[in-house]
Amino acid sequence: MGLIVQKFGGSSVANAERVMNVARIVTDTYKKGNDVIVVVSAQGDTTDDLIEKANEINPNAAKREMDQLLTAGEQISISLLAMAIEKLGFPVISLLGWQAGFNTNSIYTAARIKNIRPNRLQAEIAKHNIVVVAGFQGINRYDDLTTLGRGGSDTSAVAIAAALKADKCQIFTDVEGVYTADPRKVENAKKLKEITYDEMLELATLGAQVLNNRSVEMAKKYGVELEVLSSLNPVPGTIVKEVAKMEKMLIRGVTKDKDVALVSILNLQDTPGIAFKIFSKLSSKNINVDIILQSIGRDGTKDLVFTVSKDNGPVAVELLEDMLDNCTIKCNTEVAKVSIVGAGMESHPGTASKMFEALYESNINIQMISTSEIKISVVIDAEAADRAVSAVHKAFIPNEL
Amino acid sequence: MGLIVQKFGGSSVANAERVMNVARIVTDTYKKGNDVIVVVSAQGDTTDDLIEKANEINPNAAKREMDQLLTAGEQISISLLAMAIEKLGFPVISLLGWQAGFNTNSIYTAARIKNIRPNRLQAEIAKHNIVVVAGFQGINRYDDLTTLGRGGSDTSAVAIAAALKADKCQIFTDVEGVYTADPRKVENAKKLKEITYDEMLELATLGAQVLNNRSVEMAKKYGVELEVLSSLNPVPGTIVKEVAKMEKMLIRGVTKDKDVALVSILNLQDTPGIAFKIFSKLSSKNINVDIILQSIGRDGTKDLVFTVSKDNGPVAVELLEDMLDNCTIKCNTEVAKVSIVGAGMESHPGTASKMFEALYESNINIQMISTSEIKISVVIDAEAADRAVSAVHKAFIPNEL
Repeated sequence: MGLIVQKFGGSSVANAERVMNVARIVTDTYKKGNDVIVVVSAQGDTTDDLIEKANEINPNAAKREMDQLLTAGEQISISLLAMAIEKLGFPVISLLGWQAGFNTNSIYTAARIKNIRPNRLQAEIAKHNIVVVAGFQGINRYDDLTTLGRGGSDTSAVAIAAALKADKCQIFTDVEGVYTADPRKVENAKKLKEITYDEMLELATLGAQVLNNRSVEMAKKYGVELEVLSSLNPVPGTIVKEVAKMEKMLIRGVTKDKDVALVSILNLQDTPGIAFKIFSKLSSKNINVDIILQSIGRDGTKDLVFTVSKDNGPVAVELLEDMLDNCTIKCNTEVAKVSIVGAGMESHPGTASKMFEALYESNINIQMISTSEIKISVVIDAEAADRAVSAVHKAFIPNEL
Repeated sequence: MGLIVQKFGGSSVANAERVMNVARIVTDTYKKGNDVIVVVSAQGDTTDDLIEKANEINPNAAKREMDQLLTAGEQISISLLAMAIEKLGFPVISLLGWQAGFNTNSIYTAARIKNIRPNRLQAEIAKHNIVVVAGFQGINRYDDLTTLGRGGSDTSAVAIAAALKADKCQIFTDVEGVYTADPRKVENAKKLKEITYDEMLELATLGAQVLNNRSVEMAKKYGVELEVLSSLNPVPGTIVKEVAKMEKMLIRGVTKDKDVALVSILNLQDTPGIAFKIFSKLSSKNINVDIILQSIGRDGTKDLVFTVSKDNGPVAVELLEDMLDNCTIKCNTEVAKVSIVGAGMESHPGTASKMFEALYESNINIQMISTSEIKISVVIDAEAADRAVSAVHKAFIPNEL
């Protein structure tokens, strides 16, 4: 009993049958005496279809109009879900982002939530309505519609849970929870019972597509307890919270990220401040650099290697060619980043060597290494990525938990 | 030069190509030095598709949710049209009904406009933006979305023209204007250069589907000059205004309405107030009665015959069977109403007999007759409707104007 926020992604409401399925999950929760706020994304491919319609007319359309267009997607899904809940005989009302009080800044297509005016949400809850809220969208100070960017519905759900001090925020997806590795690819991938916010953040950043990163950051900031679970299979999922039980494993998961390009600058003149100039230039063009490796200087030159996202690779090369002379600039997009994540690893000095050993035994060459308190990432050939994940997973995750 | 409101229906913006076509018409008007506000409906079959989605889930869904759903349709078309206008290099902004200030009452799916708060529209016009406004929709006092009912976009356009005192309101459709009869069915149907509001109202009520009735009423009330013209063929259309030149014809048009059911009550006990009781009962169930015919009483009984819309026929019969005894109640849905409309007819006494003669010569039996100052309607067998329209049209409309 309490206030529960439930979020369902686009595939969970893709058609009439699935909408009815979600309605049943929601009303089951309500029947147990809970107040329920449901956040939904646009149905299935709606957002992509709308983007395609826009591109057909004007691929460089103003982002304000893009948001005006895209917000129609959740408008459709919330009203349909409300109709389904009504059909099951429960009191319900749907609210658009602005009706639910989502105030954002004015960065169209990637807006940030400034605050939630909770009056309407509270009033509907007080009337014992199940409230269906459009995720992903809000309104700015000019009364124009905005969207939060891909995965924004997770953030919408967590923001409501934080604003209304909900007892729990459940994120329903098409998987049963957070796994130690992609269960479709890795034999013996385990579902985690619990995971910390920080671990979840690393997993999300490193390519596990279960939860949107900003939503985890926000959950951590406001102490919102998250649960990731399946909308199709009603079993307990994974709880994300501040302190998680470690279970019997050293790490929480192994991830693979293929959206990586490796940019190399060879024989770079080693003048003072050159690295600063290079990275501030990239940053000014909104290119995020992930791992950086710098060789020890030799003959007044050095080598600088770094990773960026795949589509930023060629852009970075072009920028660098304009600003640097007398050096060789290359870009390799046939690489992948494999990472292990776990809050306990910093107190276990053997973790890194265990990972490297597993890769060595599988004959996989490591091109770059990056470590943080709770993760270790390596850059390897893209073709070896799946093998690497399996090998590392096998080395760390016991078969029986 | 001035402020022009242009309205485009769903078929005019059905796909990317047509949206670009509309963008060209709008920007051509803007280039001539006009301020332009464009009102659009949802694309092609969008509204029907959304209704189907709703019916699949809950055919009896709350009307508030239906409006929440349907308003997504124009949201898509306005943003796409704005993108198309932007592509042609013109400053533009799209506004939803509520952003454009449309305040309505709370009768969901059939709301009435209470007023338009013109601030935002005026501000955008002052910035020299072309403003694309979602037709058909508004917002009520609870901040919930409403729709104006089918054909509501015409009303939206006229309401804006009235509120901002526009110089003209152009209604673009897929025909070139208002015709003396349906040009696809009647040879020699003529396009009218001008028509009065009252004549247009009768034509609209009687089945000419060019303009929504409420929009004509509003245009008359606020003196908004309307022009009906084609979005595909750039020729002058039909002007609708207070006083119209009569051209060389006695009537403005011949219409056919097949949405008619003829309900007969035979041998009705002729007690005082019985007709009142019958029609107030029908009215209380929102059944509009059109033509009424009452026979002269005989043996203490009389016959009462009236027309209602086709789907109301069986409903009316059921109501009457519950309240009346000892009489025969029948419903005939195989009828049609054929009408002639023209402000000049009251001063030409031969108009009715000329119409009846044309029908007689075509061997068409008249079941009921109804007249007003500017129209004459007859109810006939449905199968004869097209023949009747042709015969009457030929009798009244000269081949060469």
